[in-house]
Amino acid sequence: MTNINNIIDYINGSNDFVVTSHISPDGDNIGSTLSMYYSLKKLGKNVCYVLDDQMPLNMQFLIEGVEILKSSECDMKDYTLISLDCGDRPRICVSDEIKDNAVKLICIDHHASNEAFGDLNYIDVDASSTCELMYNVLVRMSEVNNIDFIDAKVATALYTGLVTDTGNFAYSNTHASSFEMAKELLIKGAKKDTVIQNVFQSNPYNYYKLLGEALNTLDIVDGKVASISITKEMLKENAISFNDLDGITPYTRDIQGVEVGILIKEKKENEVKVSLRSKNYVNVSEIAKVFGGGGHVRASGCTIFDSVENAKAKVLEQVLKTI
Amino acid sequence: MTNINNIIDYINGSNDFVVTSHISPDGDNIGSTLSMYYSLKKLGKNVCYVLDDQMPLNMQFLIEGVEILKSSECDMKDYTLISLDCGDRPRICVSDEIKDNAVKLICIDHHASNEAFGDLNYIDVDASSTCELMYNVLVRMSEVNNIDFIDAKVATALYTGLVTDTGNFAYSNTHASSFEMAKELLIKGAKKDTVIQNVFQSNPYNYYKLLGEALNTLDIVDGKVASISITKEMLKENAISFNDLDGITPYTRDIQGVEVGILIKEKKENEVKVSLRSKNYVNVSEIAKVFGGGGHVRASGCTIFDSVENAKAKVLEQVLKTI
Repeated sequence: MTNINNIIDYINGSNDFVVTSHISPDGDNIGSTLSMYYSLKKLGKNVCYVLDDQMPLNMQFLIEGVEILKSSECDMKDYTLISLDCGDRPRICVSDEIKDNAVKLICIDHHASNEAFGDLNYIDVDASSTCELMYNVLVRMSEVNNIDFIDAKVATALYTGLVTDTGNFAYSNTHASSFEMAKELLIKGAKKDTVIQNVFQSNPYNYYKLLGEALNTLDIVDGKVASISITKEMLKENAISFNDLDGITPYTRDIQGVEVGILIKEKKENEVKVSLRSKNYVNVSEIAKVFGGGGHVRASGCTIFDSVENAKAKVLEQVLKTI
Repeated sequence: MTNINNIIDYINGSNDFVVTSHISPDGDNIGSTLSMYYSLKKLGKNVCYVLDDQMPLNMQFLIEGVEILKSSECDMKDYTLISLDCGDRPRICVSDEIKDNAVKLICIDHHASNEAFGDLNYIDVDASSTCELMYNVLVRMSEVNNIDFIDAKVATALYTGLVTDTGNFAYSNTHASSFEMAKELLIKGAKKDTVIQNVFQSNPYNYYKLLGEALNTLDIVDGKVASISITKEMLKENAISFNDLDGITPYTRDIQGVEVGILIKEKKENEVKVSLRSKNYVNVSEIAKVFGGGGHVRASGCTIFDSVENAKAKVLEQVLKTI
């Protein structure tokens, strides 16, 4: 495994970079990519931020004023591709051409399922978030280059990824190091209240209507497995986007006695995204793997190409084997 | 204002203590009282934990095995009363007799409305929680006495108060010092996952039914003030206790564009408890004061002796003056 210093040496010796992350962007995805993007700019490098997906509404505050390109708009040559927060090569959210033409691939990630697919890798599956890894990179990079990379803008981006991937410090991936990082980011000027308000406290009124309907579908099996199903009709009626449902996942797990929570979201006809959460002992990363997905021990996801009903039955069958 | 050292000197020179907190106990109330209780025990003092109210369900894990007395069961003489996390003398949750007969009253608190009603006071209205103040007391007390007071049990109690009073680090009262404390408590063995699971992730299934009904009452005025009303009938139908509604308060404020959230909870006929939350600029402590209540700039509460409907109208009238 590459260490941080190798990556920093490589970055310092190169000039052209494309930074990106995984499909279905979330806070850690965007926060870690942005922190790398800003830091490469500060170093005077040529850098493109490329991501071929729609950004969630609650992350707009973070990317305001940032030029994020689609793959077709990026004409960089002889570049290094830096993949942040992405567990495997197929999920990197740029065209195959951009992946194939990179002179080097740097992978910085914390997903349990990551098999170190980069040429240079900094992977720590125990880290709270890729933003925590980027924090470590930037602390070291600040020392090496004698430049303070963690300014208020970068601190805010890193704080966003830290709080989204730890459920605002609630999940078991929150360690003493995460709090140390949070403290330092506040000192560096992270706009904590802006992050919290945008990420967690700015749900549209319709979101609560949808939440009410979603809670009506709450189903408990054996007192230990709970699921909520959201159909594309429910999304359409309430004008809520598929990418804005992350906040509903915890409701499936935060019930007395429940070990595994399942959120089933219909993306389109016969395409269902499943999010899995566990409390104490079930490794939901293994369950997601059965369906070609991945993630972490306590939080994972997969896509099942079937109806909502069948997808629910298939996942439940696997989950019940582990309970 | 007394400083920490005076309080520690006084404690070291005395032998008999009653520790208590405010009515309607919550995490900071119980966490701070417990941390003082355990520490006085460790010092070999005589100490009674007295509280004349029912403990919330989600705090049972914390007080398991702890002897908590009612005022009538406490026969201590020549004791010092230590009031933790209580904003004024009338809200101290022991009998008048116990208040009046104390040889000294020590007050450790962070409520904005606290007027230093103790003989010895350690009050910091900017602190996240009384548990953060108790953390400061115990760090200093450990140095003075050369005893490590912050063991895993005390760390867990302090962590509970920190996360309940900061909405698990979401509220604007979360400072760099709060994260420093969280980090140290984890290092000292605080059972973070136990706290999170008991406090936030163990809602009974019925709680979600009630939440659905409560969301149906969600009412928005001028796009900036949102309220939810919970009647005693709703509580009865779902078998949810009045003291277990704290988690619903944030739903009133976490809506796009909303500045003030109001949760109206009917305790009994013509007795309504109102919880107020604000996001950015409204001082809800001032609004609560109008009705004889108090609290913090961004989180406060009061009791109105009227119907749910009238209480809502009265509070709304005051809130709309500040918007």
